[in-house]
Amino acid sequence: MIHFSRGIPPREAIPTEAITRLTRRVLDTEADRLFQYPPIGKYAGDPDLRRELAAFHGTEAERIFVTNGSLQALDLLAGHLVHPGDVVYVEAPTYDRAVQIFERHGAKVVGVPLEHDGLDVAALAQLVAAHVPAFVYTIPDFQNPSGVTMNDSKRRELVRLAAEYEFTVIEDIPYRELRYTGTASASLAELDLDNRVVTVGSLSKVLSPGLRIGYVIADPALVTDLAGQAEGVYLSPSPLSQAIGARCLAEGLVQSNVADLRRLMAPRLSAAVDAVREQLGEILVAAPEGGYYLTVHLPVANDEATFLADARAVGVVLTRGSAFYPDGSMPPQGTIFLRLPFQAMEPEEFAAGIGRLASLIA
Amino acid sequence: MIHFSRGIPPREAIPTEAITRLTRRVLDTEADRLFQYPPIGKYAGDPDLRRELAAFHGTEAERIFVTNGSLQALDLLAGHLVHPGDVVYVEAPTYDRAVQIFERHGAKVVGVPLEHDGLDVAALAQLVAAHVPAFVYTIPDFQNPSGVTMNDSKRRELVRLAAEYEFTVIEDIPYRELRYTGTASASLAELDLDNRVVTVGSLSKVLSPGLRIGYVIADPALVTDLAGQAEGVYLSPSPLSQAIGARCLAEGLVQSNVADLRRLMAPRLSAAVDAVREQLGEILVAAPEGGYYLTVHLPVANDEATFLADARAVGVVLTRGSAFYPDGSMPPQGTIFLRLPFQAMEPEEFAAGIGRLASLIA
Repeated sequence: MIHFSRGIPPREAIPTEAITRLTRRVLDTEADRLFQYPPIGKYAGDPDLRRELAAFHGTEAERIFVTNGSLQALDLLAGHLVHPGDVVYVEAPTYDRAVQIFERHGAKVVGVPLEHDGLDVAALAQLVAAHVPAFVYTIPDFQNPSGVTMNDSKRRELVRLAAEYEFTVIEDIPYRELRYTGTASASLAELDLDNRVVTVGSLSKVLSPGLRIGYVIADPALVTDLAGQAEGVYLSPSPLSQAIGARCLAEGLVQSNVADLRRLMAPRLSAAVDAVREQLGEILVAAPEGGYYLTVHLPVANDEATFLADARAVGVVLTRGSAFYPDGSMPPQGTIFLRLPFQAMEPEEFAAGIGRLASLIA
Repeated sequence: MIHFSRGIPPREAIPTEAITRLTRRVLDTEADRLFQYPPIGKYAGDPDLRRELAAFHGTEAERIFVTNGSLQALDLLAGHLVHPGDVVYVEAPTYDRAVQIFERHGAKVVGVPLEHDGLDVAALAQLVAAHVPAFVYTIPDFQNPSGVTMNDSKRRELVRLAAEYEFTVIEDIPYRELRYTGTASASLAELDLDNRVVTVGSLSKVLSPGLRIGYVIADPALVTDLAGQAEGVYLSPSPLSQAIGARCLAEGLVQSNVADLRRLMAPRLSAAVDAVREQLGEILVAAPEGGYYLTVHLPVANDEATFLADARAVGVVLTRGSAFYPDGSMPPQGTIFLRLPFQAMEPEEFAAGIGRLASLIA
């Protein structure tokens, strides 16, 4: 079976030996504090980790709030920002777990079309004029699931709308550092006009998912509020994980691993794009320059469930693309949305999987 | 200043060197899987840790669900069990953070008087006859904040009521193993008549708070539900922390540390009881045989805030006892409730603190 399914880093993307070596050094020097409760009282995270994350992002430590993974950050943010009856606008498609979190907190989640160069900001402008949301949630870089990156002018227009209509923008940037070619746009936080952007980040894709280190970059007042909320839910993230994350950043391991990932992934991305174009035609949703995902709008004769069953019968496991569309929004008529993660596959395997899919629509 | 405040283990109660040694062995043998995502799909915890916790409690691994600390377990349980308008009965006084969690999930939290030998089960019987709760929350062993342990007949009556009226009992047992004298009663889970008891445990007080390992022991169906819920909030607890916890249990470190804690704490408890009786008279709420807390109903001339300020002026820091009383319930008239944690103090320091308090009521 060829698996075009979960978006997790392949084994070779995690610098296990180097993390282990630094973990041993953390144990040598900091063991006394790691197995005790951290000091509480609106605890926003290990001071070393907050300082290192701030340096990594060119901001101040007091703007960093550390969580048990970035999903937990979204959960706490939703708890803080969503009130009964609130609307939240998201990209359609978007990260399904985020939608579930916002809905669990009582939000009405509305999908805004995603184009090849990012959120349809003109459509968003009409929506916010009619109903100001609790927040807009976006993954502006190498989006999950689509692989789309938001272009510069849309970024500027989004933060302008946020300032005009006074809503929060949550930018979730787990893949931002994973740019294999081209030049990065400014982040939404860098363009922020009115302290409206809250950034959610993670060490899962640039260092290690097992450390379970997510974080929020926000106004210090919001950091303090989130810290109070977190203390009432789980007291604190693991001191050991945080110390390991801090050490890996301080020693440059995250930075060198990102460089390694660029070398590892660039040929995979390039080969994957070629394989799709050659075997499926010009149906890519976008031509990503990084991240984990290629996506296509695949013309199919039957429905999605039938296609996925047919694909499995020829040895290809796919994720149900419709699951990424909130609130009844849909891919273009006559097509299904397929996410094709390329990060964990050698070019030959990826091409073979695409070949099998091609055989189904021939 | 003498601090009768936080209930955290003293440094000498955490076997830091031994945990560090076992952590190094975990890194030697399991590093490959520790820094990756654990397998998901209703992930209830690391299989080794579930098996070791099950053995520790004499139950089956499929009944174990691992969380980021036991507060997170209470949060997920409340999310599962509480529906709008539900009542939850708790001991008065009880653990304040638990009350906050239940209220955040929409429960109306009602305090039931706590006696020297546990929850007033007769009062509870009247309450449940009038209004069946979503659940009853109890800390039956060396309760936080009171130090009270529920006696056998009350335990039997509580599980009988749960079976008759078909409500869940959450027994939170962080201190249960910390018995320094006397004989343990059966746990509520052991007495359970009708699969109504859910146990919440933690490695924080028997091994290390920094590992942030809490757990639930429950019916496998509930474990699966909680796992699905947790996956949508934080994906999984730290694989490394879980592997360390599993290794410490497998190597007998938790068990030997509990034995060490008994030797460490027994004289502290005994001296603390003596100090209170000699200097404050017969005002102990209970004569605990374990745990962290002595408590008193202290007769005061003024109100609690005045007394706490007076205490601080003579060098004693206290926790506000009224904060442990939910829903307007109160300690006996003319008294304030004082929690006096003895676990982190040498007998001389504890006695000196009690002496300063005695000087205020002389």
